[in-house]
Amino acid sequence: MTSENKQRFDAYVAAVENRINALFDGKYSSETALRDAMYYSLSAGGKRIRPVLALEFCRICGGEYEKALDAAVALEMIHTFSLIHDDLPCMDDDDYRRGRKSCHKEFDEATALLAGDALENLAYRVIADSNGISDGAKIKLVAVFSDCVKRMIDGQVNDLAYEKSSAVTTEQLISMYSQKTCALIECACLIGCICAGADDEKISAAKEYSLDMGLAFQITDDILDILGDEQTLGKPIGSDAASGKTTFAALVGVDEAYKTAKKYSDDAINALSVFGDYDFMEELTDLLLDRKK
Amino acid sequence: MTSENKQRFDAYVAAVENRINALFDGKYSSETALRDAMYYSLSAGGKRIRPVLALEFCRICGGEYEKALDAAVALEMIHTFSLIHDDLPCMDDDDYRRGRKSCHKEFDEATALLAGDALENLAYRVIADSNGISDGAKIKLVAVFSDCVKRMIDGQVNDLAYEKSSAVTTEQLISMYSQKTCALIECACLIGCICAGADDEKISAAKEYSLDMGLAFQITDDILDILGDEQTLGKPIGSDAASGKTTFAALVGVDEAYKTAKKYSDDAINALSVFGDYDFMEELTDLLLDRKK
Repeated sequence: MTSENKQRFDAYVAAVENRINALFDGKYSSETALRDAMYYSLSAGGKRIRPVLALEFCRICGGEYEKALDAAVALEMIHTFSLIHDDLPCMDDDDYRRGRKSCHKEFDEATALLAGDALENLAYRVIADSNGISDGAKIKLVAVFSDCVKRMIDGQVNDLAYEKSSAVTTEQLISMYSQKTCALIECACLIGCICAGADDEKISAAKEYSLDMGLAFQITDDILDILGDEQTLGKPIGSDAASGKTTFAALVGVDEAYKTAKKYSDDAINALSVFGDYDFMEELTDLLLDRKK
Repeated sequence: MTSENKQRFDAYVAAVENRINALFDGKYSSETALRDAMYYSLSAGGKRIRPVLALEFCRICGGEYEKALDAAVALEMIHTFSLIHDDLPCMDDDDYRRGRKSCHKEFDEATALLAGDALENLAYRVIADSNGISDGAKIKLVAVFSDCVKRMIDGQVNDLAYEKSSAVTTEQLISMYSQKTCALIECACLIGCICAGADDEKISAAKEYSLDMGLAFQITDDILDILGDEQTLGKPIGSDAASGKTTFAALVGVDEAYKTAKKYSDDAINALSVFGDYDFMEELTDLLLDRKK
């Protein structure tokens, strides 16, 4: 990244981390055992892409990024809840996540289940308490969050169904990715638009961007699960194949998958033209396509 | 119940059932496998006490009960989500609920997990779309729901901790019941108050009522798990003892437990005096104390 963009990225991440810590030390704190499990997974880091998108979309729609900060943190809570539940034995049964034990391995299954439930719920409290936006905007956020979480869960249901099926098509996988992965990316972009009071043209461009970018992001994830470095990724590679999961990259091959991801990524960048100042978004989108983790 | 009260109770339940069915046939419908699991548990019935409380509190605070209907349905979704997750093998591991197989037994664990997640999420969408109340009231509802769900989950965490402990006190159990059981009862009563625009005096009376009534309700549940009829209850009795769970009734004995429940129930009724027309609530509270399921 250019140093200016890198500085902005770091400032966003720092703002998000600070807000998460403030919330967990303060009034949203739960019973200790639960709070520790929630915080363990939420503070595990990851790329913080979704909150960064939320803050940057707010900025490029003409709002101060701070207006979207609470909603961005709420979305990271939703994302973390989905990962905790996804890792459970009855789902993907993953022992590692982001370089450390998954929540149910560090704690236990019941605590992980409840920590996920509590994070899903807390997200809505954080939206209701968002600083600097109107009640009308808050209600729009609640509706967008709920619709996106619903779509994500629908995607997880299809993901599970396709695991049991012997003949999954690329069309089915793309459709499932557009639910499971793109839903929260769309939520991130829409948060920014809503908090900045963006017009319909920008909202529809944000949706278009998030669909294309989300597909590129997920296909890149597939490729990393085949080619990635375990140390860098913080989780075992080959886990999709080991669990019998067919991915787009496995189906069409890594080279073809990269070409497809590149096309989606370029389309995503093209969708940004209605935003005046999209240099940061363009660079971020390019970087995510060629990421190593 | 008097025939007038019975008629009102039945009208409330019918309104709730109709609204649930309308929502699931309409825009909130999910992928089929998930929708079926959500609807299976949500339509299993149960007593519908929480939505009835929400509608009646709205009425006795001077609002038309229909104003609280969406929020009442949202609360039943939250209640159902908590039951589905509570029944999972890593939690209470119960195979039956309300006279039929629990969700993970009828479907599978992953589907039950996701159905619970989806119901928890959908509740907030239903609040955001509530008919006939202001954006400000909706945001108050979101905050109250989230606080009550948090308290309920904190109670579940303590419930699990006490199961593993050999020396639980009656004080600890009452405190845990005040979280796990009373939280959603309080949510129900507050929904009615908020949708009717009740004043602070009524809101604090509603909180007082719900704490006492919730404790009476849970202790009666304990007693039924010892003395109840399996056919009537729709689930095996003795499940608390079998799973090593210490209940208030097991600790102090059934007679003493009934006396305590009766005292809480009477206190609950006393808290109703600020509401002019509480004949229905009084009769309902008495009936719940002497219920057989």
